[in-house]
Amino acid sequence: MLSIQTPTLLLNEDICRANIRRMADKAAAQKVQFRPHFKTHQSLKVGVWFRDVGVSAITVSSLEMAAYFAADGWDDITVAFPVNIREMATINRLAEKISLNLLVVDPASIGILNQQLTAEVGYFIKIDSGYHRTGLEPHETTLIDSILTRAGPYLRFRGFLTHAGHTYGASSAAEALALHRESRHRMQPLRRRYVKEYPQLIISVGDTPGCSLAADFADIDEIRPGNFVFYDVMQYQLGSCKLSDIAVALAVPVVALHPQRHQIVVYGGGVHLSKEWIPATDGLRNYGLVCRLDARGWSSALDGTLVCSLSQEHGCITASLQVISSLHVGDLVAVLPIHSCMTAQCMGGYTTLRGKVIDHG
Amino acid sequence: MLSIQTPTLLLNEDICRANIRRMADKAAAQKVQFRPHFKTHQSLKVGVWFRDVGVSAITVSSLEMAAYFAADGWDDITVAFPVNIREMATINRLAEKISLNLLVVDPASIGILNQQLTAEVGYFIKIDSGYHRTGLEPHETTLIDSILTRAGPYLRFRGFLTHAGHTYGASSAAEALALHRESRHRMQPLRRRYVKEYPQLIISVGDTPGCSLAADFADIDEIRPGNFVFYDVMQYQLGSCKLSDIAVALAVPVVALHPQRHQIVVYGGGVHLSKEWIPATDGLRNYGLVCRLDARGWSSALDGTLVCSLSQEHGCITASLQVISSLHVGDLVAVLPIHSCMTAQCMGGYTTLRGKVIDHG
Repeated sequence: MLSIQTPTLLLNEDICRANIRRMADKAAAQKVQFRPHFKTHQSLKVGVWFRDVGVSAITVSSLEMAAYFAADGWDDITVAFPVNIREMATINRLAEKISLNLLVVDPASIGILNQQLTAEVGYFIKIDSGYHRTGLEPHETTLIDSILTRAGPYLRFRGFLTHAGHTYGASSAAEALALHRESRHRMQPLRRRYVKEYPQLIISVGDTPGCSLAADFADIDEIRPGNFVFYDVMQYQLGSCKLSDIAVALAVPVVALHPQRHQIVVYGGGVHLSKEWIPATDGLRNYGLVCRLDARGWSSALDGTLVCSLSQEHGCITASLQVISSLHVGDLVAVLPIHSCMTAQCMGGYTTLRGKVIDHG
Repeated sequence: MLSIQTPTLLLNEDICRANIRRMADKAAAQKVQFRPHFKTHQSLKVGVWFRDVGVSAITVSSLEMAAYFAADGWDDITVAFPVNIREMATINRLAEKISLNLLVVDPASIGILNQQLTAEVGYFIKIDSGYHRTGLEPHETTLIDSILTRAGPYLRFRGFLTHAGHTYGASSAAEALALHRESRHRMQPLRRRYVKEYPQLIISVGDTPGCSLAADFADIDEIRPGNFVFYDVMQYQLGSCKLSDIAVALAVPVVALHPQRHQIVVYGGGVHLSKEWIPATDGLRNYGLVCRLDARGWSSALDGTLVCSLSQEHGCITASLQVISSLHVGDLVAVLPIHSCMTAQCMGGYTTLRGKVIDHG
């Protein structure tokens, strides 16, 4: 770690494995299928840590990711993204090798799938349970019926899938949990209406805040959280995790100290952390919380010390004079990311605290 | 183009070459050194288009980028980022091969450079001319003197460099231009004070809004704009360019139409466009303007049609019923990015309208 020269995404394997085990245990205790979303880590190596707790079915958000994991032996994959009919060749190639589930939002997709599929795929119908990003509303049963009726012999109906992404915008854990519960509640009429015809029907839900906070999963069949594998400052702020559950931090070199403006400049910008931010006090933006770093790992977040602006390669940290005077140009500090999925995507790889380099697809 | 399956960053070579030529001509007419910043495009191929108009000296924002371009024959490179003393081995390797200029902000760096340099480098002192990101203030001549005095035999002083990045936050072209002028004005006492001792002293400025808007560069020696190579919606909004000067657009497949909420969902999210946004009317966020796309390229931006939210892979576009009813699932549309540097970094490559695939380092 002490030999780090440029911004490096550190991964604490112990924390990450504990996050994985906690969610796997909860799913097992609640007797729901655990189909974790791999879009956060996108790593074959981290995938192995999921295999170690018995996970065999996964979720991804693109066919490219599905192909990446399929090549490593994952053979039961849901692509939780509205089917992109421009990628039919990729879909058919994958469907021949693995058990592939697609997501249908628009009845217009069914015609093209019927025409162009050459192998069997499962499909979920995407339901908008309150997030309003995409999906049919639970009461749009005419459209749902039209999808079910039109689906041809290569399309096997698996159930209804929703993502209560609006829990990410909640202002408290209680509100996030209430939104998650309401979202699940809105799925129940669909089960009642369609379960006779489709007794194997799955109700699948996804959000990390809800899956972290909910005490039970009584009325659903499958959970697909992803972010929990690393968590981040946004999840901490929301109450989904403790700060000590955050499994990744960006190690950044200090390149300038500006005590007169209470700022530290680091080599670590929007191309490393992503430009995701949450509001901080005093009208500031929070692009990440700052920790000390030594050979064993990162400390807890330094009080009142946060990344307040980012340009392409620069990060500006606001800090007390006490913190600034304890640092030198050339030191390393660690930044806990606001949104770990985006930071992992920017960095395209990890280094564990033990110095192992880990892939990101 | 019509065979595009997944989000693809299109590059209009004609527009890009015209942007390059316009800025090169302006620099030549004003008799200033044109040292374009290559952090926006990060492409060897686009670099060739700069060579075609006679550019031989460039700016980058990391040693990694410097090495990328040095390997392609660029031998006069300024790394316009506070020197990261953790990368001394890379600095020495590069300095042996090319004419390398570093940026010194913190006097503490000088001691380490003196100790560890094994080849000659040029250095600029970074001046804060109003942006307040990093740099010494023009009146901090004691610190400047201390840098100049302490600099050892391998360090050759080149001049004072500033980046008036606060022009990006201006609310009008007139304000951006005024900030750019004020920033240049603040550099002049430095020239007066140090020019006798350093007659070759260079005053170097960098921002795209200022360099695009200014009619003359009378009081400076070098310009380092970067973004102008592609421009983007942020620059258009600011008045630095016309919409028709934007040289890149992200082609994205339509995956769902939601006429009831006036929305289109596309395969193209924060991992493709970056999460950079600017405020739009009605409290909306603008993550990109939307154009039609056909085999010849993209249209002008569709009235009132913009990307209003982004998640990892999803983009939600707000559009009129007229626009929505003209599209089908599986169609392509093009998104003009808010900040082209970030989008180019996310995408890591380009496809020209003629179908050529182009590198991004």
